[in-house]
Amino acid sequence: MKKNKRVGMLVDELISNPGRLFESKHFCEKYDIAKSSLSEDIRLANEILQANGSGHIESISGVGGGIRFLPGINTEQIRELQMKLIEMLSDKSRMLGGGFLYTADIMFDGNLVHDMARIFAQKFADRGADYVVTVETKGIALAAQTAFMLHLPLVVIRREARYSEGSTVSINYFSGSTDRIQKMSIAKRAVKPGTRAIVIDDFMRGGGSLKGVVDILGEFDIETVGKGVALGSREPERKKVDDYTPIVIVEEIDEENRKITISANEALQAEVHG
Amino acid sequence: MKKNKRVGMLVDELISNPGRLFESKHFCEKYDIAKSSLSEDIRLANEILQANGSGHIESISGVGGGIRFLPGINTEQIRELQMKLIEMLSDKSRMLGGGFLYTADIMFDGNLVHDMARIFAQKFADRGADYVVTVETKGIALAAQTAFMLHLPLVVIRREARYSEGSTVSINYFSGSTDRIQKMSIAKRAVKPGTRAIVIDDFMRGGGSLKGVVDILGEFDIETVGKGVALGSREPERKKVDDYTPIVIVEEIDEENRKITISANEALQAEVHG
Repeated sequence: MKKNKRVGMLVDELISNPGRLFESKHFCEKYDIAKSSLSEDIRLANEILQANGSGHIESISGVGGGIRFLPGINTEQIRELQMKLIEMLSDKSRMLGGGFLYTADIMFDGNLVHDMARIFAQKFADRGADYVVTVETKGIALAAQTAFMLHLPLVVIRREARYSEGSTVSINYFSGSTDRIQKMSIAKRAVKPGTRAIVIDDFMRGGGSLKGVVDILGEFDIETVGKGVALGSREPERKKVDDYTPIVIVEEIDEENRKITISANEALQAEVHG
Repeated sequence: MKKNKRVGMLVDELISNPGRLFESKHFCEKYDIAKSSLSEDIRLANEILQANGSGHIESISGVGGGIRFLPGINTEQIRELQMKLIEMLSDKSRMLGGGFLYTADIMFDGNLVHDMARIFAQKFADRGADYVVTVETKGIALAAQTAFMLHLPLVVIRREARYSEGSTVSINYFSGSTDRIQKMSIAKRAVKPGTRAIVIDDFMRGGGSLKGVVDILGEFDIETVGKGVALGSREPERKKVDDYTPIVIVEEIDEENRKITISANEALQAEVHG
């Protein structure tokens, strides 16, 4: 097989299986090439992926080693994504009243979700997480894509315990956004004590819901090692969780003048590439 | 830029943007090459993607034309996926009683979801759909990945109308699985009358829930042009919808002898490639 074709096939297989560790043997056998030729192919594939800003290939040497593709995003692409989100979210027809914005179309747009997930995948790749966790419903597509990119299982916390989840543990928490007590519930068999989780959600205002997730994970002795949200909020200034990463921020929803102000998380580029 | 690198970059960009139509100009400018060289690159990229069973590149000529990558899956990969699902689902520890199986880990496994979505993306690519639709919660990752591959918006029908969805339309339907009346609710602004939808869900037993989706879409004069479910069920023989595509089928859950029997949808390979 010609080098042209081998490198393209390598790129395809790696991107289609992000985060997955492949033994060198897998490719040497598939393409019937020596390890030295494979190293050359990998070097070129890595150059290609980095040139497109798609991520990079990590080589792990020794027993149990191999190569894997870690998705990422470059600073220019982060900026473009933020600009696009700001433009879409500033559209005043999204105003629902009571400080709510309609965002379902954004949170379920495959391309936007893919780019947002690249940010979280790059930022949280080295946290040693065992799962990505979200609360149903609007963050599921984003959390699922992030989990896929990090080659981790996704755990979805439900609002109501469902019979199809088997035994569950539930907690009540206070949600500032809805100004009432809410419930969340996690399937016992979905998690193991003493593990680590990355929490992804679509929106965070006061952080009540995110704190609920951290707390319910804590019930299982699961440490939250990263928190990412698509959309943060300037208000209230005081949040119930710290150290969370929003992509863009709702500065103000001025219902009287029908004006929505959204800003970029300016720290994001440094946080992701720092 | 060398042909080696160009072709790899083309493969990366196409796979990262499935279903999206790119003008030839985009690549000619990016790589600073003539249209004839690009045609050569596209031919090779197409060969690469087909060799891996990942899908193929479609070229659309004339004004408004260009190229796009349509994800797919080959017969061997379908078979492998079905075998893997059968093995996982036959594990008797999944039995929850009352004919329920624990499937959340499968429905939120990124690699399984990715491969299942490739089946539906290939099968439903030519239906002229405007959205992919699912009902929360367990089918969302699969529906989101299918929508991403088809470059279509995802619409998630909620169990309860939520304020953050804006105005909604709701219907009640009878769910045979839970033996009770259930409700579903769709955001008015998520859909437009006179359009077409592909419906994706995690599981279908009698088809009550799927029929509910078809009905609520019908309220908006939206035609359902494809129905895919990860897991079908042999019982009851009589379904409330026809012409749906399961990947694997629950033949029997024998609680007394603690045995789960799952089979492959044998028609799937012909349906997808026919």
